[in-house]
Amino acid sequence: MNVVSTTDPRTGQRRDTDLRETSDADLAALVSVAASAEGWLAGLGRLGRAGLLEAIADSLESHRADLVATADGETGLGAARLDGELTRSAVQFRMFADVLRDGGYLEAAVDRAAETALGPAPDVRRMLVPVGPVAVFGASNFPFAFSVAGGDTASALAAGCPVVAKAHPSHPLTSHASAIVIQSVVRSMGGPDGVLALIHGQAAGRSLVREPAIRAAALTGSIGAARAIQAAIDERTDPIPLYGELSSVNPIIVLPAAAAERGAQIAEGLFASFTGSGGQFCTKPGLAFVPSDEAGDRLVGTLREKVGAAAGAVLLNEGIRDAFLAGSATLEQAGARLLARPEVDATAGFTVSPVLLEVELTELSATLADECFGPALVVVRYPKAADLDATLAVVPPSLTGSIHVGADEDRATVRALADLLAARVGRLVFDGYPTGVRVSWAQHHGGPWPSTNSLHTSVGATAIRRFLRPLAWQNAPEWLLPEELRDGYTEIPRRLDGRLDAGRR
Amino acid sequence: MNVVSTTDPRTGQRRDTDLRETSDADLAALVSVAASAEGWLAGLGRLGRAGLLEAIADSLESHRADLVATADGETGLGAARLDGELTRSAVQFRMFADVLRDGGYLEAAVDRAAETALGPAPDVRRMLVPVGPVAVFGASNFPFAFSVAGGDTASALAAGCPVVAKAHPSHPLTSHASAIVIQSVVRSMGGPDGVLALIHGQAAGRSLVREPAIRAAALTGSIGAARAIQAAIDERTDPIPLYGELSSVNPIIVLPAAAAERGAQIAEGLFASFTGSGGQFCTKPGLAFVPSDEAGDRLVGTLREKVGAAAGAVLLNEGIRDAFLAGSATLEQAGARLLARPEVDATAGFTVSPVLLEVELTELSATLADECFGPALVVVRYPKAADLDATLAVVPPSLTGSIHVGADEDRATVRALADLLAARVGRLVFDGYPTGVRVSWAQHHGGPWPSTNSLHTSVGATAIRRFLRPLAWQNAPEWLLPEELRDGYTEIPRRLDGRLDAGRR
Repeated sequence: MNVVSTTDPRTGQRRDTDLRETSDADLAALVSVAASAEGWLAGLGRLGRAGLLEAIADSLESHRADLVATADGETGLGAARLDGELTRSAVQFRMFADVLRDGGYLEAAVDRAAETALGPAPDVRRMLVPVGPVAVFGASNFPFAFSVAGGDTASALAAGCPVVAKAHPSHPLTSHASAIVIQSVVRSMGGPDGVLALIHGQAAGRSLVREPAIRAAALTGSIGAARAIQAAIDERTDPIPLYGELSSVNPIIVLPAAAAERGAQIAEGLFASFTGSGGQFCTKPGLAFVPSDEAGDRLVGTLREKVGAAAGAVLLNEGIRDAFLAGSATLEQAGARLLARPEVDATAGFTVSPVLLEVELTELSATLADECFGPALVVVRYPKAADLDATLAVVPPSLTGSIHVGADEDRATVRALADLLAARVGRLVFDGYPTGVRVSWAQHHGGPWPSTNSLHTSVGATAIRRFLRPLAWQNAPEWLLPEELRDGYTEIPRRLDGRLDAGRR
Repeated sequence: MNVVSTTDPRTGQRRDTDLRETSDADLAALVSVAASAEGWLAGLGRLGRAGLLEAIADSLESHRADLVATADGETGLGAARLDGELTRSAVQFRMFADVLRDGGYLEAAVDRAAETALGPAPDVRRMLVPVGPVAVFGASNFPFAFSVAGGDTASALAAGCPVVAKAHPSHPLTSHASAIVIQSVVRSMGGPDGVLALIHGQAAGRSLVREPAIRAAALTGSIGAARAIQAAIDERTDPIPLYGELSSVNPIIVLPAAAAERGAQIAEGLFASFTGSGGQFCTKPGLAFVPSDEAGDRLVGTLREKVGAAAGAVLLNEGIRDAFLAGSATLEQAGARLLARPEVDATAGFTVSPVLLEVELTELSATLADECFGPALVVVRYPKAADLDATLAVVPPSLTGSIHVGADEDRATVRALADLLAARVGRLVFDGYPTGVRVSWAQHHGGPWPSTNSLHTSVGATAIRRFLRPLAWQNAPEWLLPEELRDGYTEIPRRLDGRLDAGRR
């Protein structure tokens, strides 16, 4: 098969690696080994898998220097950002260890035999069980936290599902190194091959989701990638779910009182949020609604200065660079006025200039409201907050929507805008920026199509539910039930005859 | 548009009703009215919606005589069964009222602002919110419990989603009467039109899921129906989920000690389970594995006598009757030996004879293991329980799998079979029959494809989750948060900084 190559985005230099694209025969063997690893994960039990996840977190951190250096060479994201991202990966593995210890994720429920309005009813007990081996597609823009050692893998292993991960071509060596770390931890615990396997190549990725043993797929990527994977899934006899996090424009509304109170501070925050990591975040704000008044002028002026003085951004690969240049050109052709685009040396690698554009509210169109992945922001100037209602319908549903509220803002206006955004996003942010997604129990990273094609993605405790399915036991003998469903088990939250007990923890 | 007709399956006589198939223009108007009813459902709050559901349950029961008579005339299922099914519908509405009062279904979670390993983290709060108007497709075989007044409607209204229900052509008058009951309750509470709308006609059903305002669809029906609806959904720009409960063969394994201990009793139970309501249950057992020994012979002998003496079964409609005759003929052509098929008067309406067939374990094929909807059972004789392992792979994944276990059964054998079935079903039944699905919190009615195309269906408390989506609030002002996410709220189960509190209830 083809040799896998890696490219330094700072120089554009491409070189061959020792890795090969995965053949269909190799893939079938890997999936078969993955399927046979399910028993080991089940045998570990909840607490054993919590230990596995924590050991992986520790090992990722103990390989920090090498992993960050490898990722920086392949992505150009910089050591500081990648250092933080590696910590994020470790934190995710530790959070899912907590989720396992808590045990509430099993949704254990016991309904004892009873006389009911429908006659005598049998004993029924239910909890969630692993779906089986899953496919994880690494993201270009997060070589750690949304790739081989990312939240998809952490939540799948937590659930008890072996993972076959497809490396993103923007960071094959980082993916390989991440897989080695995880595989070594498994081996040190006496685990089999197949708990985590890594494959390379787009064709192998499509073959992966056609493998009968694969039970679900998770992707952080583009709508195009999702369509290609879905088309491969559609060739199966039995459908499997694809959990995709795809495209998001993340509108930010700055209300008049907020602009007046702290316009400079908001300009600062907006600049950092749309240019950080080259604007290559799924939560990057692409549209900012700013009042047409003087406070708004000052805010936009500050923003303009900051963008004008900004350095070039190294994008992840040639495709993303080209798409950004085309996308920002389309915005200008569609009528957005250029406010700032600093001159940078674009001859080196995949470097581009950040772009700040402006339109009037009445000019906003679907084209101008489309996602442009990379460091571009369209400022939309509006005369009155009440006028935003109708226009927000043009903005595609997104992962997030943000509102900056001043102390004197009219509450009815804020509520109306929040309700409108709530119908179109998965996370409402107040007085902040959508980037920097907190890793925690209550987090939700998803939203209506096209931001995601499903309810759950890889951030937050419920990410684990993607890889579990309900199973009910009717009148099962005690000895055959999973421990968590036996009489008197109090270690985890359970519903007993409909009543929730929070468990011992 | 075309007049809607109704047929008495006992006579085959068809007559026109006063109802009309729904035109696309009427449909668009109904969906628009449905969308505008969401606010009223939200305004009721959890407790107000609980009251609505209980009022619907009461009203269904107070119209019992009329509803049952209407349904009996259209379905031939008999007053006793339909009486029980109406109670089941009322019980379902009352169960979702309990689910609302409990509030755990909201999955409320609060993570307060904190210093974390990733730096200062914002306040994040999450709960589930309604998806919007949903489409409910009524089932042929449950004119109440899986139709207009069924679990899909109950769980959708509980979630706060207006319902547009499509009447099944086998019981348009029952569907209409059920809709009137629900609509009258809504009106008596001062609610708007659009909380529940009813449409008629297959074309209208396909148009329904193409309507942009419709956010999810639920179906209990055939794989063919699911494919037609999915094809219509695929014409949308934005995908919406279809929750389908489709096809199931529900294998039953009678282990040797069980057959020896209580063969006659098992024969009795099996007979009732596969012939009840004309075998028209999604949980009807289609395959029974019985040992080849003398105890097995006696069990099969009893079963044969009972089937031989059975009365004819009136099937729901001409299509189901024809499919049953073709399906049972296919089983015979595929090598199953006829054990019993009583002579009945098949000239009246859609009456058929129950059919009992037999094959050896080594003869079992995919054709013989396919679902035959209606009163047919294939007995599979096996020499040793250990031989079942390989054969069970031929049985399509199902809603349920059942095992009858004797006191002297080898536990390792039971566990191996249970594990094997568990991988292929959604509910494991011990010493019982899959029909008569308990309505309770821990119930799960679903299974791997082709039994369902999703994790959740309309039975059990989690059915409500199909019509909800997560929404997160970051740094939201207290006054803007839903009551359930405010500081100090203790009425419902919530996670606070990852720790579950069971709430006051």
